[in-house]
Amino acid sequence: MSDPRPIGVFDSGIGGLTVVKALHELLPNENIFYLGDTARVPYGGKSAVTVERYSLEMTDMLADEDVKIIVIACNTASSLALPKLEKTLSVPVIGVIKPGAEAAIAVTRNRHVGVIGTRATIKSSAYERALRSFEPKINISARACPLLVPLIEEGWLDDDLTDRVIARYLTPLVAEGIDTLVLGCTHYPLLNGAIARFLGDKVKLVDSAGNCARAVEELLNRQLLRAPAENSGVLEVALTDAPDSFLRVAREALKLEIDQVQLREVLHPSPR
Amino acid sequence: MSDPRPIGVFDSGIGGLTVVKALHELLPNENIFYLGDTARVPYGGKSAVTVERYSLEMTDMLADEDVKIIVIACNTASSLALPKLEKTLSVPVIGVIKPGAEAAIAVTRNRHVGVIGTRATIKSSAYERALRSFEPKINISARACPLLVPLIEEGWLDDDLTDRVIARYLTPLVAEGIDTLVLGCTHYPLLNGAIARFLGDKVKLVDSAGNCARAVEELLNRQLLRAPAENSGVLEVALTDAPDSFLRVAREALKLEIDQVQLREVLHPSPR
Repeated sequence: MSDPRPIGVFDSGIGGLTVVKALHELLPNENIFYLGDTARVPYGGKSAVTVERYSLEMTDMLADEDVKIIVIACNTASSLALPKLEKTLSVPVIGVIKPGAEAAIAVTRNRHVGVIGTRATIKSSAYERALRSFEPKINISARACPLLVPLIEEGWLDDDLTDRVIARYLTPLVAEGIDTLVLGCTHYPLLNGAIARFLGDKVKLVDSAGNCARAVEELLNRQLLRAPAENSGVLEVALTDAPDSFLRVAREALKLEIDQVQLREVLHPSPR
Repeated sequence: MSDPRPIGVFDSGIGGLTVVKALHELLPNENIFYLGDTARVPYGGKSAVTVERYSLEMTDMLADEDVKIIVIACNTASSLALPKLEKTLSVPVIGVIKPGAEAAIAVTRNRHVGVIGTRATIKSSAYERALRSFEPKINISARACPLLVPLIEEGWLDDDLTDRVIARYLTPLVAEGIDTLVLGCTHYPLLNGAIARFLGDKVKLVDSAGNCARAVEELLNRQLLRAPAENSGVLEVALTDAPDSFLRVAREALKLEIDQVQLREVLHPSPR
């Protein structure tokens, strides 16, 4: 049994391409349809109600592309909208929170895990809940880092100023004694190098992208949804607004081959 | 003749409150209705088509509040949507670009003006066009500064890191020889102190807010639209998404009295 339909990947913008990169490396024969809501990016400072509504609109659009599963490659949307999406969508849905939390539990030795993300992700406590579902007594230090995404979008990936902002955000977490840090935003793997430079080998990094890709592989295997082995995976990218300079940054940093970017207007479905 | 209807003020988010502050100081008896599109903020990285559509939706909502004039307290929306808004709306519309450009022309001595703003504002060249409409041979150095808004929203207004980012952005403009700098984003007056610290007295600052308020005063006088002299101006604030921490930052920095914030859902009018 095999299923050639694409994997649908949704993100608030361009950052979810780090998940696409991880998916493509792990599952090179899968087709991927990526939808980024660049007309309303970022979600990270917005309310739960608004993020849930946007996520529903976007995943409805993905469902229309006849995708076999949907990956929520956005920590904010995973944090705030996953329960509703799981209830509403007719295809399986995978977020980035649970795979990241599970990986952190496997990595930590001192049972003290740090989590960084957008304001909305941290405020939602979604990682805390996921981590505690695996290990109720885990110690957690969480911090919103709203400047990291704009620094990444500016392309200042290896830059003294970015290093200083990282130090400002992470110093308190290190002082509190974390030995593992979850990068709870799909943009952040682009700062892997800078963050690791600051943390040295005291603290291990766990990113959403790789762990989410492994969760997708497992789900496809379990549900017999893998693409034919002879297929060479194609990536299609659609955005709700014209691509800006950050698409170039991401493309270069991730070495992703993206042909033409499609433009899609946001559909406003009738209220449920 | 007097007109008690409110002045409608529209911004992509919270930054336009700097314009409200300037309006309220200059015209303390005017009522103000402020509408911030926090559900889709920021506009600064989005395309012209999208910014124009959002601006039309928001100003339609303001028109429904029976405002007597509309102030586009957002440089990005003023840059990209003003011509369309002027054609569409039945009340007078004032943006922030022309008043800022006019003030810069009055201030510069060496005829070399710097302009900073969001990516979309700078890309639109709206300030260049406005400056050249007053003085065709003016010298202009323009630069997008996409990190300043997130730094302001983080509340790092007097901060070594913010000073370094400002130095990074402004050093080339100073080297090119500007003697006047237009703060082409309504957030930026919150960094007045930090920017002036870097520039010293070599370069004069021109902000959109104060000059826009003076243009509003002139228009109200000309069209006999001033509020009754005995009126004590009331400020109403409506947002398209729940207010986040930045509302607190702006409120404190600007010392603005805002009672309850109203929530409004974005209306999607039929295409024109």
